Amino acid sequence: MNNREYAEIVVRELNAALGAIDTEATEKFADLLLQADEIFCAGAGRSGFQIRGFAMRLMHMGRASYMVGETCTPNITDKGMLVICSGSGTTKSLVNHAMKAKEVGAKIALITINPHSTIAEMADVVIEIPGVSPKSDVQGAVKSIQPMGSLFEQCEGIYLDIVIMILMERLGMNSDTMFGRHANME
Amino acid sequence: MNNREYAEIVVRELNAALGAIDTEATEKFADLLLQADEIFCAGAGRSGFQIRGFAMRLMHMGRASYMVGETCTPNITDKGMLVICSGSGTTKSLVNHAMKAKEVGAKIALITINPHSTIAEMADVVIEIPGVSPKSDVQGAVKSIQPMGSLFEQCEGIYLDIVIMILMERLGMNSDTMFGRHANME
Amino acid sequence: MNNREYAEIVVRELNAALGAIDTEATEKFADLLLQADEIFCAGAGRSGFQIRGFAMRLMHMGRASYMVGETCTPNITDKGMLVICSGSGTTKSLVNHAMKAKEVGAKIALITINPHSTIAEMADVVIEIPGVSPKSDVQGAVKSIQPMGSLFEQCEGIYLDIVIMILMERLGMNSDTMFGRHANME
Amino acid sequence: MNNREYAEIVVRELNAALGAIDTEATEKFADLLLQADEIFCAGAGRSGFQIRGFAMRLMHMGRASYMVGETCTPNITDKGMLVICSGSGTTKSLVNHAMKAKEVGAKIALITINPHSTIAEMADVVIEIPGVSPKSDVQGAVKSIQPMGSLFEQCEGIYLDIVIMILMERLGMNSDTMFGRHANME
Repeated sequence: MNNREYAEIVVRELNAALGAIDTEATEKFADLLLQADEIFCAGAGRSGFQIRGFAMRLMHMGRASYMVGETCTPNITDKGMLVICSGSGTTKSLVNHAMKAKEVGAKIALITINPHSTIAEMADVVIEIPGVSPKSDVQGAVKSIQPMGSLFEQCEGIYLDIVIMILMERLGMNSDTMFGRHANME
Repeated sequence: MNNREYAEIVVRELNAALGAIDTEATEKFADLLLQADEIFCAGAGRSGFQIRGFAMRLMHMGRASYMVGETCTPNITDKGMLVICSGSGTTKSLVNHAMKAKEVGAKIALITINPHSTIAEMADVVIEIPGVSPKSDVQGAVKSIQPMGSLFEQCEGIYLDIVIMILMERLGMNSDTMFGRHANME
Repeated sequence: MNNREYAEIVVRELNAALGAIDTEATEKFADLLLQADEIFCAGAGRSGFQIRGFAMRLMHMGRASYMVGETCTPNITDKGMLVICSGSGTTKSLVNHAMKAKEVGAKIALITINPHSTIAEMADVVIEIPGVSPKSDVQGAVKSIQPMGSLFEQCEGIYLDIVIMILMERLGMNSDTMFGRHANME
Repeated sequence: MNNREYAEIVVRELNAALGAIDTEATEKFADLLLQADEIFCAGAGRSGFQIRGFAMRLMHMGRASYMVGETCTPNITDKGMLVICSGSGTTKSLVNHAMKAKEVGAKIALITINPHSTIAEMADVVIEIPGVSPKSDVQGAVKSIQPMGSLFEQCEGIYLDIVIMILMERLGMNSDTMFGRHANME
């Protein structure tokens, strides 16, 4: 198949998966994001790359945001919120982060394939994305021709970009007002 | 709008943009990737996060791949290939990388909105993704409701995942054979 | 030689190099750090690892600090300060960062072997560390048995840790008051 | 105190701490490094920055080396070796990495203040550096005026640079032969 033929199938998969994400859970997720003083983002592997894009957009919006594990990321407190991307919801380092966040009284959001994991049990809001987890037998409703967790990871990034638009709408921001703090050294 | 309504529009944008990417350029890109001994990936900001996912998948396939700027990334030589993601094609650090790659005789691929940039002129293959560049007036054919370069960045990630499937097809690999070198410490 | 014999020589090299760093330049560097609203740190390769430790300690002290190139690093403004570690003072990406900082009216400090480089000319304060540059013929007064820029890189880290102690002294802080914002998820 | 007065004290601390590191343990560490097919490096916070410098130097020497958590780091196998820097030896994510390495039959080296930790028990070689741990009451023999784990972290970096010189000596390499694979895009 050529890239356009693949694209047709992938877009169809994205459409099915993104169209199945709960709207109420998303509204709650947006509420929590707006209430938090500081937002900490975490994810391993390719899920980690997708959530980095979200952390950066939050910074563009003027929110205090951090990637767990980067140089200048401080401690999380009870005024903070931890957003985790994890297909399985069982990655050990992420479980540890969630336990620490819980311990200090921070809020937790989880973007996942598997709504019944260790992290899901600790989370204040769970966003379930149908997909195939690369690390478990957890099987979502959407079949994919893509290897490993690719469909889920694509959905994470796009979904989080949609959440940014929902926050912008609520805050009355547009692309111009956001551009303000875009890094000028890169 | 709620997340499903946004998703419908975003998927439509993705469909238009991904469906417009040249198939011949993609075949040439795949050829070059298979010929290279080492593949170096580079990108700034959110484009950088998308191409990280590509570098990781190449590693999963058993290819020698590196992100420019990470700890153990060696020098590029004439047997290497540099893959750059850059909406504008003019980000200074990436222009410098392309000049160095050119100087040593390495191949260069560029994923971009703007097919007439400094990097595009040096590249052996240019993949044009229609979109709105966050940093210039370059305007692609696809209109987007999304802020800044979001549509382009989403397309980069999905397109590069499609290129991985094209490489898998050519090499007769499947998801199981790829899982072999997936990081077990993370 | 065994590790203790090497250590004896290395410590002697460190003593000579660290003992030769200008005290007035250091006081000016500390002044600028205390005046800046936001401190941006940059360095390539092993110099980059050393200055990461400085950026992190500034965060521990409650200062707004960032590593250039990390996810949530915003734009630099005229209230910001850019601290660069560069043996040669000519690394292209760092020259670009310095030019941008200069353009917006931010202050610049350079830790370097070579006090007559492109970046040095733009800097408000230059801290010269005697050493052997890995990338140029620039030769400091201190001979080293160590490969490449190792002596310089060690001095960068230790010197920046000393600057932290000078800042602590000026601010009346101690190890306990600093521990407050140490990352609790890592 | 000015920077030269601080430097005098810090150099004295370094001399005491580095001079107390066991030579036999170091020889065994070097043996294991030369026997391993792939070397994986891990550390959190400022210890992580120091060991990054070691991972990079190993790459300069032509060894297959990786930082755990970076984009193109593959899985560890029984032919691999894991080198961990951890003052306390109890950081959860690092304990998890050590358990995984142990499980697959890889060798483990630990650079630490505390020779009686969870990771120390799993390690094939433990390098004890006298110092004050930032995270526990573990108190080494060397008193320090420096905040938190600074003395330990400085010693880690310098000690690992000394190990590089020991490896170079064994392999008959010098600074010129090492420069070969130094990154040319940065």
